[in-house]
Amino acid sequence: MIGALNHVGVATPSIADSIKLYRDVLGATKIGEPFDLPAQGVKVCFIDTPTAQIELIEPYDETSPIVGFLAKNPKGGQHHVCFEVADIHAAVAEMRAKGVTLLGTGEPRIGAHGTPVVFLHPRDMGGVLIELMETPKGDH
Amino acid sequence: MIGALNHVGVATPSIADSIKLYRDVLGATKIGEPFDLPAQGVKVCFIDTPTAQIELIEPYDETSPIVGFLAKNPKGGQHHVCFEVADIHAAVAEMRAKGVTLLGTGEPRIGAHGTPVVFLHPRDMGGVLIELMETPKGDH
Repeated sequence: MIGALNHVGVATPSIADSIKLYRDVLGATKIGEPFDLPAQGVKVCFIDTPTAQIELIEPYDETSPIVGFLAKNPKGGQHHVCFEVADIHAAVAEMRAKGVTLLGTGEPRIGAHGTPVVFLHPRDMGGVLIELMETPKGDH
Repeated sequence: MIGALNHVGVATPSIADSIKLYRDVLGATKIGEPFDLPAQGVKVCFIDTPTAQIELIEPYDETSPIVGFLAKNPKGGQHHVCFEVADIHAAVAEMRAKGVTLLGTGEPRIGAHGTPVVFLHPRDMGGVLIELMETPKGDH
């Protein structure tokens, strides 16, 4: 079922500071423009590498789902790993059939790449928060 | 400096159980044979995707550097992110010049892909433990 590892979600208290780190210290060269994703409660910035991306995420507001993570990890840290799937609804049905807990209602919502995504509960995923995202059309 | 995101290191109390999760629940199809890497204090198993890999790591023994991580995260979890670099010694010199703290002595050691690696301290990396590995010859 899972396809490409699309990105690693990295929570940060400041996307601006993280851009400085990845650009000026680590020498990343392909850094996108940050944008708001209020539906997911985050501000987002993608850093491209020849393989997977780093997705910097900063709370959009105080109700953001990553506020708790940053309270425990004030400097930020690895938040989730995202794998692509061909069909998000088929993936959700398969995960439900296998007894995997989905976050929220489990209904796919539009994610940062403009395609539907769901999140699988870390307790069923070896402690890792896993995002499944439908592969954007035209990719791969 | 940083090139491809090579892999995400996922600590686990049991590679055997994690293989079942990735193979039987998530449907991963390209799962390597586990092997011991005593020099790094871990047992290792790579799961390939069309982009980056998941590197499952389990303590090799009680002195393993991931014993503490698993004490805090008994189910396992995301442990590090690994980026490739063209020349590990040049990368180390650049990191030192920029004031980044390297783990241990900072001398490159042979990692799971057979090329030299170093680890950058999370406190300088936005809370993320970052591994730099020299790109294997012939790759990319």
